Amino acid sequence: MGAEHTVKAFDEDITRLRGLIAEMGGLAEAAVTNAMDALVKGDDALADQVIKGDKRIDALESEVDKLAVRIIALRAPMADDLREVIAALKIAGVVERIGDYSKAIAKAARKIDNRKKFEPLTLLPAMGELAAEMVHDVLTAYAARDAGLAREVIVADTKVDNFYDSIFRNFVSHMVENPATISTSAQLLFVARNIERIGDHATNVAEMVHFAATGTYPADDDGEPLHQTGD
Amino acid sequence: MGAEHTVKAFDEDITRLRGLIAEMGGLAEAAVTNAMDALVKGDDALADQVIKGDKRIDALESEVDKLAVRIIALRAPMADDLREVIAALKIAGVVERIGDYSKAIAKAARKIDNRKKFEPLTLLPAMGELAAEMVHDVLTAYAARDAGLAREVIVADTKVDNFYDSIFRNFVSHMVENPATISTSAQLLFVARNIERIGDHATNVAEMVHFAATGTYPADDDGEPLHQTGD
Repeated sequence: MGAEHTVKAFDEDITRLRGLIAEMGGLAEAAVTNAMDALVKGDDALADQVIKGDKRIDALESEVDKLAVRIIALRAPMADDLREVIAALKIAGVVERIGDYSKAIAKAARKIDNRKKFEPLTLLPAMGELAAEMVHDVLTAYAARDAGLAREVIVADTKVDNFYDSIFRNFVSHMVENPATISTSAQLLFVARNIERIGDHATNVAEMVHFAATGTYPADDDGEPLHQTGD
Repeated sequence: MGAEHTVKAFDEDITRLRGLIAEMGGLAEAAVTNAMDALVKGDDALADQVIKGDKRIDALESEVDKLAVRIIALRAPMADDLREVIAALKIAGVVERIGDYSKAIAKAARKIDNRKKFEPLTLLPAMGELAAEMVHDVLTAYAARDAGLAREVIVADTKVDNFYDSIFRNFVSHMVENPATISTSAQLLFVARNIERIGDHATNVAEMVHFAATGTYPADDDGEPLHQTGD
């Protein structure tokens, strides 16, 4: 009866922990999408909402930390259960950074004028959608403990990287041809870099999800991390 | 007497935890430097050493995880002490990724031929040194609990970002003028991106060091993360 009570209490704690991570992840995903919308539409109110909303993501990280510590101290989880709690702590740290990048995009959005005249801006939304999708998928993988989906997120990072390279080249040509737009281009390159970092951090979460689900980090046949082969 | 014993045991555990992080960090810093040396000199044996050495960094992350859990479970640390243990767990996860990027650079180094004929290669070592210095400084900041030095690391990330942009432009021009070198250029751009990510992750560690030392995350006057202002 005592053991059953302990198991039930542990399950409740873990469910709450997973709920907090899901909430953080949902907010981070919305932050990416809203920051990109604010950028494309020039919607300062939406940008401000993203900037202010980041505090909630930070607060949730703190809650994850506290609950994880409480679980380790009170429930003394072993093996798989402990691995899950450790993964939650690390994932919360990475999702918090995704929130930071979205906030930075929202701040850049506030600084851009004359967006209609700036043709390369049309490339950014698709890159942003891809990154937001990675954040979404990695959270789905986390919720379902789906190591296969986590591996797909890692592979998708290459697409975000390629997008970044192509946008960079496009912007450089545009800057050469239209020197008057250099400061806008610099702001948008900064946005592109932050989207690239969001993709990289989603990949980092995917590695942790894989670890929580299987006890190993994802690797290709020669033990190389999937997203860093450069092939 | 019992309380004194507990405090001493806790201090010993924390010292060991900090020692493990320092060892991980030292190995990660050496991995960055050696991977760049292997790339510039075409030293395949050194590249192999970096690739194999990454397993030791991964194993140390596991040791940090285990010890941190043991400390929380047995010593029930409070406030500052607990914050330090949580920071160690998260920092270990980020330093492990720095090791991954170095391994990826070492693998790229093995794939490059005709490096002497490739002029843009001369730009990469300085960028690599800057990133290795960030890794070094952030570990010094961690060891000394120096929030000021952690802030300096965050500011230095902008230099790595600017380096990356300038290298990217240089490579694109070089590729246009020398189409035969495009595959080498692509490998080297991949290296530059990984160096940029090492800088970004050193920044992430710096935020955690700041948090462990002060209980707050570093922010400029309007609460914006220092390295993401894009100004």
